Amino acid sequence: MKKISFGMVGGGNGAFIGDVHRRGAVMDNLAVLSAGCFSRDLQKNKETAFLWGVPEDRIYSGYEEMAAAEASKSDGIDFVSIVTPTDTHYAIAKCFLEHGIHVVCDKPVTTTLEECRKLQRLAGEKGLLFCVTYTYASYAVIQQAREMIRQGAIGNIINIIAEYPQDWLIVSRASGASAKYAWRLDPARSGGTACCSDIGTHLEALISKMTGIRLEAVLARFIHFQGSPLEHDIQVLLRYENNIPGLLWASQIAAGNDCGVRIRVFGEQGSLEWTHTRPMELRYAPLEGPVQILTANKPYCYSACTSLCRLPAGHPEGFYEAFGNIYQGFCRHLAALKKGKAAEHFTYPTIEDAAAGLRFTAACLRSEQNGNVWTALDE
Amino acid sequence: MKKISFGMVGGGNGAFIGDVHRRGAVMDNLAVLSAGCFSRDLQKNKETAFLWGVPEDRIYSGYEEMAAAEASKSDGIDFVSIVTPTDTHYAIAKCFLEHGIHVVCDKPVTTTLEECRKLQRLAGEKGLLFCVTYTYASYAVIQQAREMIRQGAIGNIINIIAEYPQDWLIVSRASGASAKYAWRLDPARSGGTACCSDIGTHLEALISKMTGIRLEAVLARFIHFQGSPLEHDIQVLLRYENNIPGLLWASQIAAGNDCGVRIRVFGEQGSLEWTHTRPMELRYAPLEGPVQILTANKPYCYSACTSLCRLPAGHPEGFYEAFGNIYQGFCRHLAALKKGKAAEHFTYPTIEDAAAGLRFTAACLRSEQNGNVWTALDE
Amino acid sequence: MKKISFGMVGGGNGAFIGDVHRRGAVMDNLAVLSAGCFSRDLQKNKETAFLWGVPEDRIYSGYEEMAAAEASKSDGIDFVSIVTPTDTHYAIAKCFLEHGIHVVCDKPVTTTLEECRKLQRLAGEKGLLFCVTYTYASYAVIQQAREMIRQGAIGNIINIIAEYPQDWLIVSRASGASAKYAWRLDPARSGGTACCSDIGTHLEALISKMTGIRLEAVLARFIHFQGSPLEHDIQVLLRYENNIPGLLWASQIAAGNDCGVRIRVFGEQGSLEWTHTRPMELRYAPLEGPVQILTANKPYCYSACTSLCRLPAGHPEGFYEAFGNIYQGFCRHLAALKKGKAAEHFTYPTIEDAAAGLRFTAACLRSEQNGNVWTALDE
Amino acid sequence: MKKISFGMVGGGNGAFIGDVHRRGAVMDNLAVLSAGCFSRDLQKNKETAFLWGVPEDRIYSGYEEMAAAEASKSDGIDFVSIVTPTDTHYAIAKCFLEHGIHVVCDKPVTTTLEECRKLQRLAGEKGLLFCVTYTYASYAVIQQAREMIRQGAIGNIINIIAEYPQDWLIVSRASGASAKYAWRLDPARSGGTACCSDIGTHLEALISKMTGIRLEAVLARFIHFQGSPLEHDIQVLLRYENNIPGLLWASQIAAGNDCGVRIRVFGEQGSLEWTHTRPMELRYAPLEGPVQILTANKPYCYSACTSLCRLPAGHPEGFYEAFGNIYQGFCRHLAALKKGKAAEHFTYPTIEDAAAGLRFTAACLRSEQNGNVWTALDE
Repeated sequence: MKKISFGMVGGGNGAFIGDVHRRGAVMDNLAVLSAGCFSRDLQKNKETAFLWGVPEDRIYSGYEEMAAAEASKSDGIDFVSIVTPTDTHYAIAKCFLEHGIHVVCDKPVTTTLEECRKLQRLAGEKGLLFCVTYTYASYAVIQQAREMIRQGAIGNIINIIAEYPQDWLIVSRASGASAKYAWRLDPARSGGTACCSDIGTHLEALISKMTGIRLEAVLARFIHFQGSPLEHDIQVLLRYENNIPGLLWASQIAAGNDCGVRIRVFGEQGSLEWTHTRPMELRYAPLEGPVQILTANKPYCYSACTSLCRLPAGHPEGFYEAFGNIYQGFCRHLAALKKGKAAEHFTYPTIEDAAAGLRFTAACLRSEQNGNVWTALDE
Repeated sequence: MKKISFGMVGGGNGAFIGDVHRRGAVMDNLAVLSAGCFSRDLQKNKETAFLWGVPEDRIYSGYEEMAAAEASKSDGIDFVSIVTPTDTHYAIAKCFLEHGIHVVCDKPVTTTLEECRKLQRLAGEKGLLFCVTYTYASYAVIQQAREMIRQGAIGNIINIIAEYPQDWLIVSRASGASAKYAWRLDPARSGGTACCSDIGTHLEALISKMTGIRLEAVLARFIHFQGSPLEHDIQVLLRYENNIPGLLWASQIAAGNDCGVRIRVFGEQGSLEWTHTRPMELRYAPLEGPVQILTANKPYCYSACTSLCRLPAGHPEGFYEAFGNIYQGFCRHLAALKKGKAAEHFTYPTIEDAAAGLRFTAACLRSEQNGNVWTALDE
Repeated sequence: MKKISFGMVGGGNGAFIGDVHRRGAVMDNLAVLSAGCFSRDLQKNKETAFLWGVPEDRIYSGYEEMAAAEASKSDGIDFVSIVTPTDTHYAIAKCFLEHGIHVVCDKPVTTTLEECRKLQRLAGEKGLLFCVTYTYASYAVIQQAREMIRQGAIGNIINIIAEYPQDWLIVSRASGASAKYAWRLDPARSGGTACCSDIGTHLEALISKMTGIRLEAVLARFIHFQGSPLEHDIQVLLRYENNIPGLLWASQIAAGNDCGVRIRVFGEQGSLEWTHTRPMELRYAPLEGPVQILTANKPYCYSACTSLCRLPAGHPEGFYEAFGNIYQGFCRHLAALKKGKAAEHFTYPTIEDAAAGLRFTAACLRSEQNGNVWTALDE
Repeated sequence: MKKISFGMVGGGNGAFIGDVHRRGAVMDNLAVLSAGCFSRDLQKNKETAFLWGVPEDRIYSGYEEMAAAEASKSDGIDFVSIVTPTDTHYAIAKCFLEHGIHVVCDKPVTTTLEECRKLQRLAGEKGLLFCVTYTYASYAVIQQAREMIRQGAIGNIINIIAEYPQDWLIVSRASGASAKYAWRLDPARSGGTACCSDIGTHLEALISKMTGIRLEAVLARFIHFQGSPLEHDIQVLLRYENNIPGLLWASQIAAGNDCGVRIRVFGEQGSLEWTHTRPMELRYAPLEGPVQILTANKPYCYSACTSLCRLPAGHPEGFYEAFGNIYQGFCRHLAALKKGKAAEHFTYPTIEDAAAGLRFTAACLRSEQNGNVWTALDE
């Protein structure tokens, strides 16, 4: 068996999310980083390549050159990981797809739904895979929760409460460090929203993956902080299919929270709860009987969960492993595709999920602009 | 010093909240239960009286008789505690006020704001105190939080997230036990709302007491469960003075939650968090420095907190003591009044707070009826 | 039904444990405080009596006078609560027993096992009840745990880990406040140990009540702090019947702990854990299946637990209620006895448990003095 | 800069700890796996090599051949990682040291202290590094705790409470799966102890690294389970230098615990606590002021902590990263050595720590055999 070969655009040494992608991609020895255009800074580009063992002749100064060169090689990369700022994703992804190269792209995939749809069509026409890295649904116990819900552990869903409080923005403002994140705070480059597209979409994706139900409409309120042109706190009423209600709160100005993703799904027969500060645990409350605390990789877990666990129960896995789970699913799908195998069931997030995120963001933005009114999601 | 004497209407032996009132009222040896009209069931009325040492000649079969008789005694009751169903509060409270007797009333005080305003005016005209028992703000550490906020510990408030998930309704439906709570579920008797007036108002009162800021408008969504005429889950966007946002969720159908009140107040300089499942603790996150866990009755607490603690730190006090704190404040105020002392600072909830609760409920109901639109609170 | 009448020796207004006893005794309306010798300070004696409604003619300046007078009354007290310093318990308890009055005594009951045995014999001869207030086993969920163990939920017990860290001594030393507790730190008055008799015995009693197994031997180490003549930290290996091992740690110098009682009982089929900082919860880990968090007063609890709950699940009860549970059991036993009823099953701690505590303390002390060697408990 | 090159003995694909070593070793791109003798099973040996990109000509069927061949290459491995069963470590490590190759070895390093001392001398004579992978002290927040203790945050240490409950043995016995761990349970192969050497030493190493104080004597009790020849639960009184006391409990039969390492260090001015179930958090209780919860990689952390953090605060790192921290320290030391740089301060565990672990185990065993008596550690 040959390993899958991949390249990367962006993610020069020192970048947070680029590094996470690399570690995630190679974690399970399914893929090898073989080419890259990591930085416009030539020196940094080379350093990153060296660090990751990328051969000198496959270091590129531009993504177009890289796509063309790799496409023409017999052992060129199978897929590319795109970890540049959001407003550059579209052109880069389009270029690689046109050269017949599969794509993994950081989220949000594009700044507009229209661009996303174009990429989606292009990938479809070319028969290429397109993964977008929504992280949280990839934690092993979320897959446990998903399977429990499918198996009826909580009965019909009657409510969903999701939140994602962070404090990085308020802290970095106070300390004067926010300049570092300038592009995220530039309306033009971010697609018109900040908190909503940056972390609100993580919640939307998490709910969607965990429950399997379809969002139909939102009523959103955007909160601006100290005159910021972009919102840094969103409070959203959700309406899912069959009138199932939900509530979503995301904030970048919630002092005392590092990365506090939390989701609670309530059903007629019980509830499930997960919080990122205890990422290996799941709280399950059946309507009768005591609350249960499930832990990843225990004998009572479904294989959908245990197959994503690398360590015995009680040995903490974390954020890198959640990313690794995405890449593992993607690489297994890609490997099957290369072998011409029939489609199996793979659970990594795709450009469909990215489109859902953009539809969510667009609907929230319209709801806010129209005075916090119910707004259906675009098709 | 003579103890304060009080009577009770409702709360026949076996009633949940009546018993809580009695225990709270006598907890600190400031008041003595001296008269009562506990139940229409003569036997139960007598039993309750005996249990609490009420003399036989001060057991009454009707509240009007009781008000008249006690008012005419030289050592008649100083105040009455009213713990009957909501729709009977108005007439009872009015009667005692008219006889010059101070009132403590369970919440919600009346089914309409109009009635509440009438009682408020009547009490004002008569120079009588009127306490309404919103419990949660009376926990000692909430007073600690309140004082910290006043002293600037979290800076200007920028967001408030409050929730109160319960599961009693969904559990009692499943077990067929909900008939017991029939009056709470009858729109006519409850004032037109269930979850909102029953527990939503607890959150409104808690936020208001803890932060001291004024609610101006709401956008509310009511969720009905399995065809119930009344709502059992509310999700409300809040707008406080100076455009300070908030989010409130209360539910009676949230499996896995007994009485999960939780409040988080975010400011520009930090945040404060309290949850009822750990009622003696307060989580304080300054913008810089580690998160702090404050405990009731420690040397670092303000006297506003420690003065409400009866036991050394680490010895759990609970729900009864929270009620006791309300009665303690009320009795101290009453004692001061009887001595003709100048007004001091007392922190128990009054009919002003009850009016705020009714305004909140009414605004939420209108918001829901008008399609989840922003609705200003009535004056 | 007439209420039980009781008196108190010690517990002048302001005393911590005396107040806890009074509140616990009257909590469930089974008993009335009718007489007292609360303090040698005449003024304080009277104030305390007034506060609790004790008639003036039943305020006594000495316990002997009180015992004689009450014994001669037709409506004299049924029992006395003794809440004076340990070294005075023996004479007081003896006096009341000799006058035919039942006794509740704070722990440790005496400073020597010999005195305890004498009281035990005297009570036996007189047919009188003798309760000693070990608190922790009286929390409702401990009774749940006890019943689960009896029903086999964890199989055969194979290990017990118990701890009770406090920091009051180290904190009060640092702040210069330890003079207040002088008698506790005087070897002569305390019976020769501090931490061991003061809080170690609480753990011994808790283990014993919860598991029902008999302690046979200890290997104890006493740790002295900054030259204190008495120990303020004990670390004890335990050997129960059938060679079941256990480990006990108690400390008065463990910074950051208010009253951190915690017990874990391990069996061949699972484990049970309780911690005082979450007094209403029980952690149950069956050998297979997820960990369960049980809460007091839920439908799945045994009646041994729910019968001790006064509030719906989720409404915190605390330390006063644990004391109330002791008095409730004692008063029910006393009421049955007065009616000449056959013995029922009552779960309050008795002088048997007090003797067990003294045997434990004595054996620990000998083990320490002999160089930390295994030491059998005296018969 | 050239990366460090390493080989591995043991750790055929599917082995738990071998895989952890590999991931840890390459995590920070400091080292490359270049040679291996992973399994006696030829097929598995090759598969593992392929998976990790080890060239075919550097796959070896025996460790002696590997040591000789790699030592003779100009670009041979810099160090070897030994992840075979304990009783084979000595011969393998000796062989590589004799060929001038640095060593990382899983713990326990050998079955006897004598062998450990020989390896230590040999490494010293050869000027070679020898790392032994005690994991827990390598979590980033433990380094934070260590630095806080050094800086006086808790004052003089007065007590240490450490525990490591697991349930794998009792669970695997119940499920019949314990055969898999047969060598661990064979007295001959394990060095005469099970729980003590396997996990007790982890606690000893954790205490030692975190506090910096020296263990002088133990009083140990070994508990056998269902007739096992080896102990599966140990309860140990510890005596550190200056008579500082400690208490250690480790168990492989504690139902409901996956990997519950917990350490509490008490000082005259406060305490520090860490538990493996929340590996990124540290509880710090100063004698005065509220309890603090410190989180990894926050601005208030010492660089000793933040330098070991790869992700922003709130993004969980786990067990792999703790291993990565060991290898990072080791590789940095090795890189410095290769450059002929002066010794810096490196914090990875060495054969000195391994010797401490063996001395601890030997003393515990003697204490148990002599009837649970105080036993000084061998020099």
